[in-house]
Amino acid sequence: MRTTAAVALEAGKPMEIMEVNLDGPKAGEVLVEIKATGLCHTDDFTLSGADPEGAFPAILGHEGAGVVVEVGPGVTSLEPGDHVIPLYTPECRECDYCLNPKTNLCQAVRATQGQGVMPDGTSRFSMLDGTPILHYMGCSTFSNHTVLPEIALAKVRKDAPFDKICYIGCGVTTGIGAVINTAKVELGSRCVVFGLGGIGLNVIQGLRMAGADQIVGVDLNPSKVEMATRFGMTDFVNPNDVDGDLVGHLVELTGGGADYSFDATGNVKVMRDALECAHKGWGESIIIGVAPAGAEISTRPFQLVTGRVWKGTAFGGARGRTDVPKIVDWYMQGKIEIDPMITHTLKLDEINKGFEMMHAGESIRSVVVY
Amino acid sequence: MRTTAAVALEAGKPMEIMEVNLDGPKAGEVLVEIKATGLCHTDDFTLSGADPEGAFPAILGHEGAGVVVEVGPGVTSLEPGDHVIPLYTPECRECDYCLNPKTNLCQAVRATQGQGVMPDGTSRFSMLDGTPILHYMGCSTFSNHTVLPEIALAKVRKDAPFDKICYIGCGVTTGIGAVINTAKVELGSRCVVFGLGGIGLNVIQGLRMAGADQIVGVDLNPSKVEMATRFGMTDFVNPNDVDGDLVGHLVELTGGGADYSFDATGNVKVMRDALECAHKGWGESIIIGVAPAGAEISTRPFQLVTGRVWKGTAFGGARGRTDVPKIVDWYMQGKIEIDPMITHTLKLDEINKGFEMMHAGESIRSVVVY
Repeated sequence: MRTTAAVALEAGKPMEIMEVNLDGPKAGEVLVEIKATGLCHTDDFTLSGADPEGAFPAILGHEGAGVVVEVGPGVTSLEPGDHVIPLYTPECRECDYCLNPKTNLCQAVRATQGQGVMPDGTSRFSMLDGTPILHYMGCSTFSNHTVLPEIALAKVRKDAPFDKICYIGCGVTTGIGAVINTAKVELGSRCVVFGLGGIGLNVIQGLRMAGADQIVGVDLNPSKVEMATRFGMTDFVNPNDVDGDLVGHLVELTGGGADYSFDATGNVKVMRDALECAHKGWGESIIIGVAPAGAEISTRPFQLVTGRVWKGTAFGGARGRTDVPKIVDWYMQGKIEIDPMITHTLKLDEINKGFEMMHAGESIRSVVVY
Repeated sequence: MRTTAAVALEAGKPMEIMEVNLDGPKAGEVLVEIKATGLCHTDDFTLSGADPEGAFPAILGHEGAGVVVEVGPGVTSLEPGDHVIPLYTPECRECDYCLNPKTNLCQAVRATQGQGVMPDGTSRFSMLDGTPILHYMGCSTFSNHTVLPEIALAKVRKDAPFDKICYIGCGVTTGIGAVINTAKVELGSRCVVFGLGGIGLNVIQGLRMAGADQIVGVDLNPSKVEMATRFGMTDFVNPNDVDGDLVGHLVELTGGGADYSFDATGNVKVMRDALECAHKGWGESIIIGVAPAGAEISTRPFQLVTGRVWKGTAFGGARGRTDVPKIVDWYMQGKIEIDPMITHTLKLDEINKGFEMMHAGESIRSVVVY
C-alpha cells in the first residue's frame, strides 16, 4: 500500500512529506493507522545528526496512537479496530529481561530495532523508486501508517482521544514511570526535579500522585513556574538566583537533601548536582535525560559510600503492554493530566515547524494529528 | 589512669609506644580494656598523611575487641565485665538516621567524632605532660584502654576469642554486610568481586553465605587465588591475563554481566569497571573501597539509563549494636571463617612492623594482642 510520511532523508535537514510504499504485516506483525503522534526531543536528537546511531533515510517518530488495520499470521492479541499505542520498548513476556521483575528492557527485537529494520531484517517502508527507508525505534509514527511487531503494541480503551494519549507513548510514561516504577517514591517524600520541560512536568505529576510532601522544581527559565505549579510543584529554584552553591541550597531547602531527585535535562553536570543534592544515607537520584554522545557523569565515590544511590530509567521502567493501558485509564479517570501539556496541534505538513518551536522553547509538546 | 598506647605523633612517621593519661568515663561513656585490635588500611591511610581530615597527635585503631572496665553515669546497657566491640559507626537508635530503615549512618556523635574528640568536645587522652591526644574514628583501639560512648559499643558473647572477633569491628562486617545489607544478594546470583584483600575475601564469604551461584574474583596478584577459593571464589580473573577488554570478558564469563559487583580496591578506574560489568537491566555495583582524596568516579549515563545501579556502603550497612553480635554468633557457629585471614599476631610494640607487612602485601590481617 501507499501512505504519507515525513521522511528524514539526511541528518540536519528538514523532513520531507512524501508518499511512500508500505508492505503489509508479516507473521507476528501488525499494520497500524497512526492517528496522532507527539514530537519528542529524541526524534530531534536523531534528526540533528548528533545521535551516533542515527541512520538515514528513515521515518522518525515514536510517540503515537492509532488503530489496528490488519494483522499478520500468528497475531492473537490484537484485531482490526483495536486502539493501540506503539512501544519503542516492547514487552514479549518471554525473554530473560521480561521474566526478571527488576527490568522493563525487553530484548526480543532489540538488535533489529537498533538497525532500523523489522525482526526479519528488512524494512517495510520504501521510496516510490524502491529505495528502502529505515524504521525508527521500532515505531516510525511520522507515517500515517506503519507496521510493528505485535509485542510492540499496547492495546488501550477506545474512548481515549488519540491526540492526547499519544503522549503516553513516551513522555508521560517516562516521567510518571520514573517516579512509580524506578524510584518507587513513598508517601511523604521530599523530591527535587531538574528540568521543567515535558518530562519534568510528568515527573512532577507522578510525584503528586505518589504523595510526595515536597516537590522542588529547578529550571533556568522562570516561565516554567506556572505550569509546573499546576502539576504539583511546591517550590521553585532558579539556579541563576542562588547565591553560592546550588547543591547546598537544595539540601537546605529539603531539610537535609532529597529523598529522590530526578534529572530531566540530559546535562551531565546537572546529573551530578541531582545526585549530590540527594539525602546522605538514603537519597536516590534517577537519570532520565539523554546525554550528548560521549558525555560522562562523575562524582566523588564518597557520595555513594555515604548512602546515595545513582540510577537511571528508560521508558519510566514501564512494561508497555501491561502498564500503558493503565496510564491511559488514569488519564481518563482524571488521575493525571495531559491536555495542558499539549500546547500545539499540527498537521503532518507542519511537522518541521513543530521542531522549530521545540528549539525555540515555545512548546511543551506539539502533536501532529493525521 | 595511665595506659599504654601507640601514638601517631605526626603524619608519615612510625607510631611511638608510650604511656598516656586516660581520663575516666563521663556521663554516657564507657572505659574499655582493649584486648586485641586489627590493623586496617584506613588507619594506614590516615597515618600516611593522605587523609585530608587526619589530625595529630592521635591514637589510631578502630577494629578492636575488649572488656568493659567502668561505666559512666547514665550508662544502662553495659556493665563491667561485658565483652564489647567498638563501633566507629555507632547506633543511637534515636536520630533521624537510626530511625530510617534505609541507612546505618547514625549521626548522633558524627561531628565530634570527626574532630577526634568525645561528644562533650574534649579528649580523654593526653601526653604525660598534659598535651591532649586526639581520638580516632571514635575508637582509638591502638591504646590498651580507651573510652567510648555507650552507643558505640556492641555487646558480644563472652566465649568468643578477642584476637579473632576484633576483625568483626571493621573488615568482616564491611565485606559481609556489603553483600547482605547493601546489595541484598539473592540465592543464585552471579557476582564479581574486584580486589581479593581482607575486604574482598569477606565479600566472597558473604556471597557464599548468601547462596551466590558464581563468585568471580578479580585481582592482579595470582597468589590470592588459594585463599579466595577457600572462601568461596568460583572463578579467578587476572586482568593482566585478559586479551582485550576486561569488562567484556567479565560480561561474557557471567553470562551477560554480574547481578552484583563489588569494588574492594579503592581505585576509581576499577570502580568504573565494576559498574560496567554489571548486567544490563538490573546489575548493581557496590563501592566499598575508600578512594584517594579528590579522586572521582565516572561513566556514561547510558550505563545507568539501561538499568545498572551504582551504590556504596559504609561499615557494610550494618547497625553495629544490633548486627555485630549476630556476626560474632555466625563466627562461633562456623557460618563464617575468620581465623585463616588473621595471618599475623603481634605485640603492641611490633605495630609499625604490622603496617610494613601490609605495605609489602605480606599479610591479610595483622592483629595486635595486648
